[in-house]
Amino acid sequence: MNPLTGSSDDQRSARPLRHAQKVTFDGPVTLVRGETLPVVTVAYETYGELDAEGSNAVLLCHALSGDSHVARHDEADDPGWWDIVVGPGKYIDTERFFVVCSNVLGGCRGSTGPGSVDPEHDQRYGSRFPTVTVEDMVDMQRRLLGHLGLSRWHAVIGASLGALQTLAWGVRYPDLLQRALVIAGGPTLTAQGLAFDVVGRNAILRDPRFHGGQYYSQGCDPDVGLAIARMLGHITYLSPESMAAKFTADKYSPRDVDTDFEKRFSVGSYLAYQGDRFVERFDANSYIALTIAMDLFDLGDGDLESAFSRSQCRWLLLSFATDWLFPPEQSRQMTEALLRAGKPVSHANVQSQGGHDAFLLPENLERYGGMIRAFLGPPEALVDDASPPAECVLIGPGLDIQHFLKLIGSGESVLDLGCGDGRVLRALADHGCAGLVGVELDEGHVLNCLRRGFDVVHADLNQGLPMFGSARFDVVLLSQTLQSLVNTEAVVDEVLRVGRRGIVAFPNFGYRELRQRLLETGRFPRTGRGPLSLPWYECPSRRFFSLRDWEEFCADRGIRVERSIYLDTETNREVTDDPHLNADLVITTITRQA
Amino acid sequence: MNPLTGSSDDQRSARPLRHAQKVTFDGPVTLVRGETLPVVTVAYETYGELDAEGSNAVLLCHALSGDSHVARHDEADDPGWWDIVVGPGKYIDTERFFVVCSNVLGGCRGSTGPGSVDPEHDQRYGSRFPTVTVEDMVDMQRRLLGHLGLSRWHAVIGASLGALQTLAWGVRYPDLLQRALVIAGGPTLTAQGLAFDVVGRNAILRDPRFHGGQYYSQGCDPDVGLAIARMLGHITYLSPESMAAKFTADKYSPRDVDTDFEKRFSVGSYLAYQGDRFVERFDANSYIALTIAMDLFDLGDGDLESAFSRSQCRWLLLSFATDWLFPPEQSRQMTEALLRAGKPVSHANVQSQGGHDAFLLPENLERYGGMIRAFLGPPEALVDDASPPAECVLIGPGLDIQHFLKLIGSGESVLDLGCGDGRVLRALADHGCAGLVGVELDEGHVLNCLRRGFDVVHADLNQGLPMFGSARFDVVLLSQTLQSLVNTEAVVDEVLRVGRRGIVAFPNFGYRELRQRLLETGRFPRTGRGPLSLPWYECPSRRFFSLRDWEEFCADRGIRVERSIYLDTETNREVTDDPHLNADLVITTITRQA
Repeated sequence: MNPLTGSSDDQRSARPLRHAQKVTFDGPVTLVRGETLPVVTVAYETYGELDAEGSNAVLLCHALSGDSHVARHDEADDPGWWDIVVGPGKYIDTERFFVVCSNVLGGCRGSTGPGSVDPEHDQRYGSRFPTVTVEDMVDMQRRLLGHLGLSRWHAVIGASLGALQTLAWGVRYPDLLQRALVIAGGPTLTAQGLAFDVVGRNAILRDPRFHGGQYYSQGCDPDVGLAIARMLGHITYLSPESMAAKFTADKYSPRDVDTDFEKRFSVGSYLAYQGDRFVERFDANSYIALTIAMDLFDLGDGDLESAFSRSQCRWLLLSFATDWLFPPEQSRQMTEALLRAGKPVSHANVQSQGGHDAFLLPENLERYGGMIRAFLGPPEALVDDASPPAECVLIGPGLDIQHFLKLIGSGESVLDLGCGDGRVLRALADHGCAGLVGVELDEGHVLNCLRRGFDVVHADLNQGLPMFGSARFDVVLLSQTLQSLVNTEAVVDEVLRVGRRGIVAFPNFGYRELRQRLLETGRFPRTGRGPLSLPWYECPSRRFFSLRDWEEFCADRGIRVERSIYLDTETNREVTDDPHLNADLVITTITRQA
Repeated sequence: MNPLTGSSDDQRSARPLRHAQKVTFDGPVTLVRGETLPVVTVAYETYGELDAEGSNAVLLCHALSGDSHVARHDEADDPGWWDIVVGPGKYIDTERFFVVCSNVLGGCRGSTGPGSVDPEHDQRYGSRFPTVTVEDMVDMQRRLLGHLGLSRWHAVIGASLGALQTLAWGVRYPDLLQRALVIAGGPTLTAQGLAFDVVGRNAILRDPRFHGGQYYSQGCDPDVGLAIARMLGHITYLSPESMAAKFTADKYSPRDVDTDFEKRFSVGSYLAYQGDRFVERFDANSYIALTIAMDLFDLGDGDLESAFSRSQCRWLLLSFATDWLFPPEQSRQMTEALLRAGKPVSHANVQSQGGHDAFLLPENLERYGGMIRAFLGPPEALVDDASPPAECVLIGPGLDIQHFLKLIGSGESVLDLGCGDGRVLRALADHGCAGLVGVELDEGHVLNCLRRGFDVVHADLNQGLPMFGSARFDVVLLSQTLQSLVNTEAVVDEVLRVGRRGIVAFPNFGYRELRQRLLETGRFPRTGRGPLSLPWYECPSRRFFSLRDWEEFCADRGIRVERSIYLDTETNREVTDDPHLNADLVITTITRQA
């Protein structure tokens, strides 16, 4: 952290890249849009050791202003841009993984970019540098993979512009990576994000010192335009919340910075500092090249599902709740497209005040870092699994997973709605089920599902299941979840659209004890245990219904109740005599009548 | 609308101000920050006729780039910036009101600004122009009030920078206006909004053609910097949603505009057009002066309640759901401060995709225009009042207002939570109650409350009542609302904090028929009428409780049930015999035990 600015951004600042290696690929190298480069150099750094099988290589893709120096190589080294995440024993553990990070094509930190010398003209490219795309960046990383003698990546990981590279990797070289971890990304930049890039570029392009991009030979740089572009970009990396926290209390007390920009307000002096520092280490032509690559990126040209259908890896998408440059909604869209394409994917939307740059901040690191670590594997056995043993785990008060397993065949695919911390998924996996997916609203539960190695989608069931195609699962499970949802009909419709059958477990409001209590005490009834044990004003249930209500609800809608298990949760025994009165918990299997 | 750009923004564009009048006030005029101007000219236009009592004058305060030309003066005239709202028979009806709009101090459309000639130096002010504040703008409008021979404004209305002027009017000249209508405003600019202004100003200040603000004599203008500032500002006026709707489908098809700015993308060509047009009609020094005035505005320097305590007018705050320049949360904060200061205020958050500029768009005009019209008065008698007659209006299925009126004294102040369309407020007013305020979640209901002439706050009761001070009302009414709220305890706490007593009407879940139905049918019980008549999966209730539950709930929390009315809603009669069994609806008066 820079004490003057309170920013973590200086983690990205210019340093001699003492550990960077370079590899040069002779050309001509043909780019995606048809132009060629006579030769391409890629600067990269590596951390940790490749294992004997060559199976532990992880590629990190940096963001717009990053470089190959992702973390310290030793104690004496400068911190890298992701030092909080990458290193020995850290979330991306360099004692376990062989980590590779290369400067992007078009950049200005060692790899070929507009500031490189064009060997054919013996002068810097400047405006003659061809338009590069995110796919071209990935193609250079593909060449680096070969140069390093690797057959595939254990994982490709990237945030922001790095997220776009990761997406491109997943669909462009599907057999060359096992995992893709897309952080704070989107299938394309929003119109608003694009607009900010345009304004930033205009500030550079119309800076009189830009000279049409040929400023290198003029002995001047378009520093003002580049600084303004950087200030503008910087605002989009922060959230309104974090800006308010940083700059409201001392609004009229600018930091003491030496600048020719306005410093009337604290936020102004901060931006001036960011702008002034940026031009010391970044090339304006690279800024233009990389933002254009970002702006041109459009995964599948709008047909995300087709694009993702080529992928073969497992996906984790992390978004941040206050990110407005790549809003969480975009990660939801991509998750939906991946799921519709039948691909294994998890999505977590991390509650954070940090905006787009949250992935660089120590706040919430335990959660988002934990998710990164969990996704890289291997699965962990969580302490909760120990007691009770997994084979007879209670999944709700008084409800034993064994009752469900009677209704589910080994080898069936199951969607667990409201999957909690994943213990049911664990039991289902042990039962022989495959194609397991969970949906969960709680972020901590999502992390635990990931730690157990399951795919989990962070979503509110009241919004339906648009992410799942029809008849996608053999079974959709709603274990003591339906009564907590408001949109009952819509949710049940979705269960039967997405699954060949549904299994719904719910407390029976017609249970004898409840009837008697209402009759005799005149109070909203509660039981001594289970979901109906809390008082009326604290009960998490939003809908109350009996076995009779459920049967009628299903009959009225052409839903067939195939099998039912009636339980007395006090004894954990099945009820055979008049379940309407004697069962306090019901498990039913439902299907849509033909 | 400009067909090329799809923007309403050209409504603001440069035209000869054929109808503008000017008045000059000889100085020295001392500004708020101590500097003086030797003379000040105010350009203004008027619409409609002043009535004999001089009581129908309405001041409109324009936004950053507006001017005095708010609407057409005749058919042949150019449209003004708010032609959709202002005119004969329109929402601000110039057949009823004498409408005045003046160009702000510091502007460049007729009133004194940095481009005006400084008589003491016989050249334009340029950078010598003093720092003006929003309060200075208002002081010039105060002078105009006197010049026009008016004693007070019926209303002052403004959006954006105009909203800040309106706020300043309300607290600076409290006895000179009867109503203040603050649209898309805030007590101060957010840190994020301030940051955008800083970047825009830096683009101008560091434009080599700016010459420290003395460009007038150099035969050049800082057009590039001003255009970039304008592009940036423009993005903040639109919502992400409206930008996506405008620019996503034709992303790669720029409009055919003649510009030196980038036009690779449709949004780029649009911004280029906006920037290029803006510099034709706006002065860079004015842009700097007005944005600084906006940035310096800080109502009450953080102590909003003290600032508002001086005001004497009635307030209406309109925010727009997708406005991120002055987010709706800021209007909520101001509403809370006004209410805590005991001032009459309404707030409506208009559901709109239009962002900050929504007040210029025809979308939702019927709603936000309707609110403006309603606020200007007089109150309307709504059709709904006709049947049943107001004196015995049913306020819920089977529930007659007369039962409430027995519990409320004439002259008492009442807060109606979940006030619906205001018919209870109407009945309470007829009953002689004063200090009536409603809280309502539905926007259409909010509009109807305004049309009836009541103060209403657009809010979700589950969030509590932070906007009301303790013991603010004699009575807080929760008429068949509590059972729809989830946070029961918190809401009841708030009722008893804000009111000297609460009156809570709720369906009795212990009603004999409900007990019997559950016992006999084993179904979640429903009645033939009232709030419990819907099936379990459609019922709007979220909490179910009986009279007995309620009594216990109150007793456990030191809440005294003072009086109760037990009703049989089928007969609309009071129940005297065993209300636990025989009443289907209960009205109780509660107080906090000392």
